[in-house]
Formats: sequence, C-alpha cells, structure tokens
Amino acid sequence: MAKPKKPQRPKAEAPKGFRDYFGNDVTQRGEMLKAIADVYHRYGFDALETSAVETVEALGKFLPDVDRPNEGVFAWQEDSEGDKPGDWLALRYDMTAPLARVYAEHRNELPNPYRRYAMGPVWRNEKPGPGRFRQFYQCDADTVGSASMAADAEICAMLSDTLESVGIPRGDYVVRVNNRKVLNGVMEVAGVLDPSDPDKFASERGIVLRAIDKLDRLGLDGVRALLGKGRKDDSGDYTDGAGLTDEQADIVMGFMQAKRDTGAETLARLSELVQGSETGVAGVNELKTIEYLLSEGGYGPDRIEIDPSVVRGLGYYTGPVYEAELTFEILDEKGRKRNFGSVAGGGRYDDLVKRFTGQEVPATGVSIGVDRLLAALQAKGRMEAETVGPVVVTVMDRGRMADYQAMVTELRQVGIRAEVYLGNPKNFGNQLKYADKRSSPIAVIEGGDEKERGVIQIKDLVLGAKIAETASLEEWKGLPSQYEVPRGQLVAKVQEILNND
Amino acid sequence: MAKPKKPQRPKAEAPKGFRDYFGNDVTQRGEMLKAIADVYHRYGFDALETSAVETVEALGKFLPDVDRPNEGVFAWQEDSEGDKPGDWLALRYDMTAPLARVYAEHRNELPNPYRRYAMGPVWRNEKPGPGRFRQFYQCDADTVGSASMAADAEICAMLSDTLESVGIPRGDYVVRVNNRKVLNGVMEVAGVLDPSDPDKFASERGIVLRAIDKLDRLGLDGVRALLGKGRKDDSGDYTDGAGLTDEQADIVMGFMQAKRDTGAETLARLSELVQGSETGVAGVNELKTIEYLLSEGGYGPDRIEIDPSVVRGLGYYTGPVYEAELTFEILDEKGRKRNFGSVAGGGRYDDLVKRFTGQEVPATGVSIGVDRLLAALQAKGRMEAETVGPVVVTVMDRGRMADYQAMVTELRQVGIRAEVYLGNPKNFGNQLKYADKRSSPIAVIEGGDEKERGVIQIKDLVLGAKIAETASLEEWKGLPSQYEVPRGQLVAKVQEILNND
Repeated sequence: MAKPKKPQRPKAEAPKGFRDYFGNDVTQRGEMLKAIADVYHRYGFDALETSAVETVEALGKFLPDVDRPNEGVFAWQEDSEGDKPGDWLALRYDMTAPLARVYAEHRNELPNPYRRYAMGPVWRNEKPGPGRFRQFYQCDADTVGSASMAADAEICAMLSDTLESVGIPRGDYVVRVNNRKVLNGVMEVAGVLDPSDPDKFASERGIVLRAIDKLDRLGLDGVRALLGKGRKDDSGDYTDGAGLTDEQADIVMGFMQAKRDTGAETLARLSELVQGSETGVAGVNELKTIEYLLSEGGYGPDRIEIDPSVVRGLGYYTGPVYEAELTFEILDEKGRKRNFGSVAGGGRYDDLVKRFTGQEVPATGVSIGVDRLLAALQAKGRMEAETVGPVVVTVMDRGRMADYQAMVTELRQVGIRAEVYLGNPKNFGNQLKYADKRSSPIAVIEGGDEKERGVIQIKDLVLGAKIAETASLEEWKGLPSQYEVPRGQLVAKVQEILNND
Repeated sequence: MAKPKKPQRPKAEAPKGFRDYFGNDVTQRGEMLKAIADVYHRYGFDALETSAVETVEALGKFLPDVDRPNEGVFAWQEDSEGDKPGDWLALRYDMTAPLARVYAEHRNELPNPYRRYAMGPVWRNEKPGPGRFRQFYQCDADTVGSASMAADAEICAMLSDTLESVGIPRGDYVVRVNNRKVLNGVMEVAGVLDPSDPDKFASERGIVLRAIDKLDRLGLDGVRALLGKGRKDDSGDYTDGAGLTDEQADIVMGFMQAKRDTGAETLARLSELVQGSETGVAGVNELKTIEYLLSEGGYGPDRIEIDPSVVRGLGYYTGPVYEAELTFEILDEKGRKRNFGSVAGGGRYDDLVKRFTGQEVPATGVSIGVDRLLAALQAKGRMEAETVGPVVVTVMDRGRMADYQAMVTELRQVGIRAEVYLGNPKNFGNQLKYADKRSSPIAVIEGGDEKERGVIQIKDLVLGAKIAETASLEEWKGLPSQYEVPRGQLVAKVQEILNND
C-alpha cells in the first residue's frame, strides 16, 4: 500500500472531524450511559457489543441520512489471498445495521423476540464541519421479531423513563409519535403515491419526507416551497422541490398541521385525512393502539404525544416513528434563544434482516444521540462535574520520596484522591503551578524542618488558589489558609478541609 | 472506490478476526473497567478518550509486536481535495501512540506531568487465528513528563492494587520488574552492544530481546538456541538466532537467571553482571530505587518482585519494564494445566513525544489486556454473572396488552426486571420457550378466567424450568411451582419468589 512521503516531523493533531474527550467529558458520558443501560436492562433488554468493523457487504446501503447520499462509510479492502480478492471492510455507521447482521447470524440461538441495547461510537465519512463530527456515540435499544404495536409503545415509554432517569425532568422534554403509513396514506389521497406501484414517485416521496423533516429549520413557508417547485435559501442557493401541485401540497401541509389539543382529536383529524387509503387507515389504527397503550400506562401528553409533523428522515422506516425533543431553551453560538431540539429518534423497520435471510422480520427501536444528550445535561447543570483534582503531596527532598508516597497511600486508603508531584521537584513554583492546573484542593508540604519536628504543612488551595501562582514559598507558607499539624493527623486534617470546601 | 460485485444475499457474519459480545460479557467488562478506573482515578490519573482514528503520520511505525513486522494497521486514504492527495488514516493499534499525539498537541494546556488513563478498543491488522482477534480492549495508565523512578514504582503499585481491586487476591498474581538498561549493560559486557554506536548490533539486540521474551514458551534451551545459531521447532521450521558466541550467550543466559531469593540479592547479582557498563550500572540503580520505594510502601515480593527474565518485546522501552502475571493454573484447550500468564505490561519510553516536538519527554505506563483479565476473573468465578433473566408477563389475550404492560410497570417501579412477551402470542408454548431462553425466573399469567376472578398465576420457572418446554398449558398450570394470588399481590409474590430462588 503506497503511503505519502513523510515530512520531517509528523503533525500532532487528530484527523479532521475527529476529537478527543478529556476528564469529565469521559466520566460523565460513562455515568450517563450507565444510567441509560440500567433503564434498558430493567425493561428486559440485553447488552450487545458488536465489532466496530463490518464487511461492506453486510452493512449494505442503509446510510440513514438521505440528504447526503454521496457521503458514506470509512472503508478499505483486505489483502487478497491468492487469487481471491480481499473483502471490503468498513466502520459501522450506526448500531442498526450490525444488529441486523447479528440477528441474522445468530437467530437460531437468540430469544425471539430479541431485545438488545448497544452503546458505542459510530463513524460517518462526511465532510467535517463546525459541530459535525465523523465519530460520535449512539445508544440504541431495539426489539427484533415483534410486529406488536406494544413494542413501539414500550420503546416510547422507555425513552421517556430514560430521559427522566438521566436528569431531564418531566416538562422539559416530549416524545412525539407519528406513523409513516399515515403519511403514505395522505400522499396516496393527494396522488403523490400510487399504492399499486410503490416505486413510482419514490423520489418525490423522498423529497416530501426530507422537506417535512426540515420544518424546525425552514418553517411552514420553507417546507411549502420544497413541496412545490423548490426553494432559494438566504445564500441564494436553490433546492429543487418535489413538484407537487398546489392542491397536493395543501394536503401534505394539512397533514403536518393535523396536530390538535388532544391525542383523540389529532387521531380523528388524521382519520379524515386518510379516508380512502387502506395504508393510511392502517397507520391511524396503529397510532390509536400506541396512544391507547401509552395513556393506559400513564404516559400522557405531558410526556408522549401524537404529532403528525414528525417523519424522521431515515428511508427505511415502515410504520411508527418517534423522536424525543428537549423543549427548554438554550443560547446558541450567537446568543439567541433556541429550543434544544431532538436528542433521540427511531421507528419501525422491516427490511433490514430480510436482506440476509429473505424472511421479513419486524423490528422497532430507538437511538439516542449521546453527545447531544450529554451536552443538554451539562448545559442544564444536571451532571455532577468533578471540579476538584487530587490532593498533591509536594516534594521538598527528592531523597524522601518514600515518605511522600506513604502519605498518598494513607489518603488513598480512605478513598481520597491523592498523588505525589512526579515532575522535577527542583522548582517549587512548578509544583504549585501543577497543583493549580490540577485544581487540587490541598497541597501537603513536608520539608526537612517539618520532618525534624514531626509536622506537615497542609495548604487549603481552594482558599488560597488565586495568590498561589505568584507568591514565593515563604509568603505562601505564611498565608492564613495553611495549617501545621502533626504528621499523624494528615488524613484527619485533609478530610476536615475537604468537608468544609 | 471500486467495490466487489454483490452476491444475491449478503453473508451474515462478522469479518474474520472480529467478534461480538453478548449480555454478561459486555456488562462484566464494563464493571471491571469501572473498578479499574476507580483505582486509577484515586491515584490521580484523569480520563482521556481519543478518537479511534488517527492519521498514519501521527501513529508512526511503533507497532508493538516486533515479531510480526509485516503486520500492521487498518488504513485507508481520504478523498483528495483538488490537487492535494487525501491523508492516510488508520485505526489506532494501541493507546500509547494516540497519547503521544495528544500530549504533543495539547502540551501547553495540560498539567505537567500529565497522568491519564484510557480504555477502549484497539485494532491490529493481523492474520486472525484461534484466540487471536483483530479488535480487542486495552486499559492503560501513563505518566508523561516525569523522569522519576517514583513514577514507575507507582505504576507497579497501582497495577498491584488494581488486580486486587478487581478480584485477584494477593498470592494469585505477581508484578515483575526489570530494567532495559541492565540488559543493555549485560549485552555491552558480552560485546553484543557497542555503547558508542547504538545502531550497531541493533538487529542482534532485537533477536536477543525477543528470544528472552519467549522464555515461558520455549524454556531455557530454546532461548539458548535462539541466542546462538538458531532453533528448529517441533514442526521442523527453523528460526535464525542472534549469532552470539557461546560465551556471549552464557552471559545473557546468566542475566535471565539472575533472580535470587530476595530483591537485594538479585540486585547484588545484577551489579556483578553489569560491571564496567555505565548504562548497566545506571539501570541497576534505577531498579534499586524502585525496589526501595516499593518495599517502603509495603509492596513486598509477595506482590512485586525484581525479575531479570522480564524484558517485554516492545522495542521502544528505554528503562524500567514491568508485567503482571497471574500465577494460578487453568486448564488449556487440551485439558493440560498451565499458568494463566501475563495480563498486563508496560515500561518507560522516551521517544514517542519527541517524534512530534523534537523534545525528549520521559514517560512510563502500563497496559492491561482487558479481555485476558476478564477471562481470568470469569474462569475463577470472580465476576457476578447475571444468570436469571427478566420476569415475563405472558399474553393470554392480545386485546389486553394494557393490563400486561401495567404489571411490568409495577414490577419495574420496584426495580424488578420485567417484560411483556412481545412476540406473536397465539402459540402459548412459544411464550414459555421464550421465557426459558431468557432464563426468566418467573412467568405471570392472566387469562380471561383469572381476569374475571381478579387473580393471576405466578409460575416459579427456576423450579419448573425443565418440564416447561414439553408440558401443555393445562399440565403446566397444575404443577406445584405455580401460585394463584390476587392481582394486587403481584409485586409482593414476585419479590418473595425472587428472594427464595
């Protein structure tokens, strides 16, 4: 494999569109995922972790974002073996395609239905941009092998429980449910779809789906333009529309705006809109079942509601679709208030396993955008950030490292995070800078003088942080936030200061 | 990018050398990693999660296993932008190379020394084989920016604490410490190395390192053959040796066998062996410091010992090297008793950051082989496996799903894992098979008759599991492990059975 000529020194940077996570961002994500996994587990879902790499053949062409059909996966070809060309391998772009592969591969051993959750990174070979990364976390739960609307209703209920469990209170989110069959029915009624020839109008249908999916961003007028001839955006760029007639577009717009004050009223309105379409009527009945199960289960419109404007861009959904939106406002990069928006979505899909086995296997599932949900929790102060670092034991005499190590061992034994300064101890100022950079709450000092007298200095850095960087050792030692205690009281005094901070 | 012609249906299998993890294997690994992270954190290490993808340029050619120099990374080229050819990207093959990149990239913002831990998958483009996978987990801790032997000693102590914390009791493991400088000194004395021209004999030195590293597998005679002319293995394959004279080989063998009953005696023996080599004397002094710090810290030879036969194959180590071995026996695939062997290793390295910045940055760190350690804990029964699945509420009347959902909601609210059967409820036997496959402890039944009488049937499946698969519903209902209770006692009765099981 030919590789590019190397410059003298390699550039120290992550590839474009990739990023590193430090400290709290790692541990908080871990805590959030654990809380989510606990809910999924209680609902009966089992953990599954597939390999990050799949054959391109197994992944198929199910890249979810139909808006960017040219963008894809990170793929490479294996070395050939003799005459046999190597397989093409690729990084998974979501958790659903690998699930379909695993289910097809192990279907005889797995329970049926198979209910699993999966969490981990996925990769998209997209053009990186501000806030758009090529590796990000997903956290999915799917029920494979169940055609029952109870499975969809349960995923919606679980999503609601999950959000509350990680710290989004009721009222700050809503799970919206819709059904693709209803939209298809509406499009049949409008003449945009032909039930006897589903492939006809396929591209128009795709444009309609994507247009509705942009309601948040473009507003009603923008969507209306995209349903018709097309739309020129603020930059002057023109996007072709679906080419619907005014009458057809009105019908689709009517569907999007069919939401009423109660679920029952919305369902009644949808029934009117799909009259004459078998698919549409079936979709409304599915929605009715879901609505019934959820409201019986106590998941009322304060948590989950029927909303015909939800369509989800993803092409492979065949029935119910759902998404979770956080409804509180945040300030965007320009300081404007905006709704936080969607953090999870999913729906029912039937064809993913069929690709492998020829048998249609009904499935439904949800994917949580982990990074977005974590950002929301951080923005709302719902994640406990570790703001203080370890206790730092400074090194006054490098020949007495064993003494210093003994101190941190004592502290660690009672669960206090602690470390000896391991850099070059010659410059004491560097030790204080280090403690500052670590956000250490406490520094411990035992010079030769202290050692002789059997005492140590314990410095409360939370009190003294601001002056520590400039003061000399002597000044610093005289500051009121420093205590001299007998060596034997190290742990007790540190605990006392930590409890007061 | 040309892709192979697709067959009619894709094969449902993971690529060769990759595997999926189900249920307990996922959750137990998560628990183990959490326990490890807690120890690392208490020692003052911060979490870092780098992207899985790096530029090939940044990764460099530090593939650890010098035994297989032709095997490497999974790499691909980015699309070109205009005239500019795309960068080569690759999956990380370990956690150390990305750490060097991150440290070089962020060195002005990071504390110095920088102490971080990292856990996650790494990828190796090796030929897959039995038990050899191309994706596996590593869990590392490194201190970058410290030349102090206290940093190495601390990593050894932390490794010891970590093993005990995850469930390997003292006595079942040993952390062995050695120093590359001592080996280099011995090789100088033997004339295998020339301190004034370190590149001379480089390949001989590599062969010596790898030969010593194989002591476990080949025994003393095998290593001796590889130090000399070479070795023919059982299959008749011949491996070229380092070409040392008998006298030289004797000196190296003497080093490997320099371990004595106590650390002090071993160090004394090593001092004799390196006489006349400045590097060797420096190495012995480093080992003395480590040994002193560890024994002062209470980490005696029952946990950590000096062992000159430890060299670690990895080419980039420059000073102390260490590894953790589990000393208990397990049965191998052929039923023979064997020592479990190494589960972690590491050492000091200086050149990784220098590649980027030109500045030498001393660093030392350890990597735990997560899959091997987990396998050891599972083999010893130290991981709590979840052997029972969720309570399954069966569906006797699909029109009453809301009733069944209400039952699982009640159970989940008190923390009991529960689910409604979501497959096709028509065949009740399938529901029981499902419960069996899920290892459900309890099935709940509420048919029309029960509903009318306000009762439910609660079946203890742990007692009744064996007969459940063949018995008819009527037989099954009459078995003694089934209880009829009022609907209102669902939670209480389930709790009672779970507590008794």
